[in-house]
Amino acid sequence: MKIISSIHEMQVEAEHIRLSGKRIGVVPTMGYLHRGHTSLIEMARKQSDVVVTTIFVNPTQFGPGEDFDRYPRDLDRDRVLAEDAGTDYLFTPSTAEMYPAGFATFVTVEGVSEILEGKFRPTHFRGVTTVVMKLLLITKPHIAVFGQKDAQQAFILRKMVRELNVDTEIIVAPIVREHDGLALSSRNVYLSQDERRRATSLYQSLQLASARIQSGDRSVDSLRKEIMNLLKAAQPLQVDYVAFVDPTSFREVDLVAPPQVLALLAVRFGATRLIDNMLISVP
Amino acid sequence: MKIISSIHEMQVEAEHIRLSGKRIGVVPTMGYLHRGHTSLIEMARKQSDVVVTTIFVNPTQFGPGEDFDRYPRDLDRDRVLAEDAGTDYLFTPSTAEMYPAGFATFVTVEGVSEILEGKFRPTHFRGVTTVVMKLLLITKPHIAVFGQKDAQQAFILRKMVRELNVDTEIIVAPIVREHDGLALSSRNVYLSQDERRRATSLYQSLQLASARIQSGDRSVDSLRKEIMNLLKAAQPLQVDYVAFVDPTSFREVDLVAPPQVLALLAVRFGATRLIDNMLISVP
Repeated sequence: MKIISSIHEMQVEAEHIRLSGKRIGVVPTMGYLHRGHTSLIEMARKQSDVVVTTIFVNPTQFGPGEDFDRYPRDLDRDRVLAEDAGTDYLFTPSTAEMYPAGFATFVTVEGVSEILEGKFRPTHFRGVTTVVMKLLLITKPHIAVFGQKDAQQAFILRKMVRELNVDTEIIVAPIVREHDGLALSSRNVYLSQDERRRATSLYQSLQLASARIQSGDRSVDSLRKEIMNLLKAAQPLQVDYVAFVDPTSFREVDLVAPPQVLALLAVRFGATRLIDNMLISVP
Repeated sequence: MKIISSIHEMQVEAEHIRLSGKRIGVVPTMGYLHRGHTSLIEMARKQSDVVVTTIFVNPTQFGPGEDFDRYPRDLDRDRVLAEDAGTDYLFTPSTAEMYPAGFATFVTVEGVSEILEGKFRPTHFRGVTTVVMKLLLITKPHIAVFGQKDAQQAFILRKMVRELNVDTEIIVAPIVREHDGLALSSRNVYLSQDERRRATSLYQSLQLASARIQSGDRSVDSLRKEIMNLLKAAQPLQVDYVAFVDPTSFREVDLVAPPQVLALLAVRFGATRLIDNMLISVP
């Protein structure tokens, strides 16, 4: 595995790989890799000839007061995990090179970036779309793999890539969970033992929604009420949202309808904000 | 010369050209080609193996009440001019394919897009940066050629390409002028005979600024006053701005200083808005 931190060097290398006729797969991450990330790298490995994993804790997607400074970092460990999962190039640019003084260019996807996560984190998706556009233009991939864990991000990135005509296929890989259902996240390390236990209420809520929908409940008001009862029993600091959206438009619905609905949650336990979601088949 | 209107077809063709090892040069235009455009095509011809000229009257860079509907169009004539100047591919996408229903992704360069032209045309540069990003991603060029006539646009596009890491070199070609100094523009056809004559005051103003600076005048207040006197004698409907900027930062200056200053004008004659500029050496 080759480690590259220079943008120019990575771009020249990517161009050479493309000119040699090989397919590039990229997995953009913020590091502190877990099995969720390695599943993305393995998926890229299967669908391309050369796998580039990027590690960059992107300051522009953190709001003021968010956890940019304390976001967990461990490059030595990441190096081993990335290579074991099948990475050929580890791209680790510096903040100074990614965002030189006077940086002022942003990519925005209006509308869908302002709801749900975007409502609680107003500049978050602008930071995500801008950095992903940069990373795609630097690594020149045929495919880019993202996790379904960040469902709204995946939807927004697909829309960005389609609307700006980026010649990269976006692949979204399933959520990887702990044995008790908690979705893997680098932020799970923030949880105390007690919070970790209560955090399983997110997955339980999604399972409850799925069960109620299978048995005929179609009302989002009623589903939300049941989920709120379950979540409140786990004593969260705050429930940011419990939402049901049409997965093709990401518009919130009042009544769930066939064929599918996407249920999304954001819940805070202490200082830690967790998100989870589930694509539910509607009979 | 091959004419392509499908985005997908153009992108596949561009990828094949790149994979064959050839250099692509693109010249994005809104059509109604004149010698200004053909000079850009000729410059692309010299610096690349395959020249793509794009013709697309981009709705997102026109404001409400601007001249999108009446902007001059003549594809039959453009086809001949583009081919004669050395175009290999003429890319003429449809508005419906460039901006499908629900389109919501924009590229913005903050700050410099809001001054001068941006002040009088508030969403103009967002439309330009968005469409140029799309055109660059569709045509995959090694170089892209723009005209110095739109000096602020060229500065903004260079900043966008650098900050988003687009692997395309931006080349800016000199202004082409009529025998009496009027900068070529597709919009010159709007001018009545009388307006056409008075419009030479733009170039005369820039020449006056240059002469005053060569003879030692450094004060923008004094330069602006002299230019306003000259312009007013030509009875314009309105002078939008007379500005002097540092060409490296595009920041307005109060005192011109070595090595160079960029003088910019926007003046309306009747319903027609004309812009011009000159890079002036400062002794």
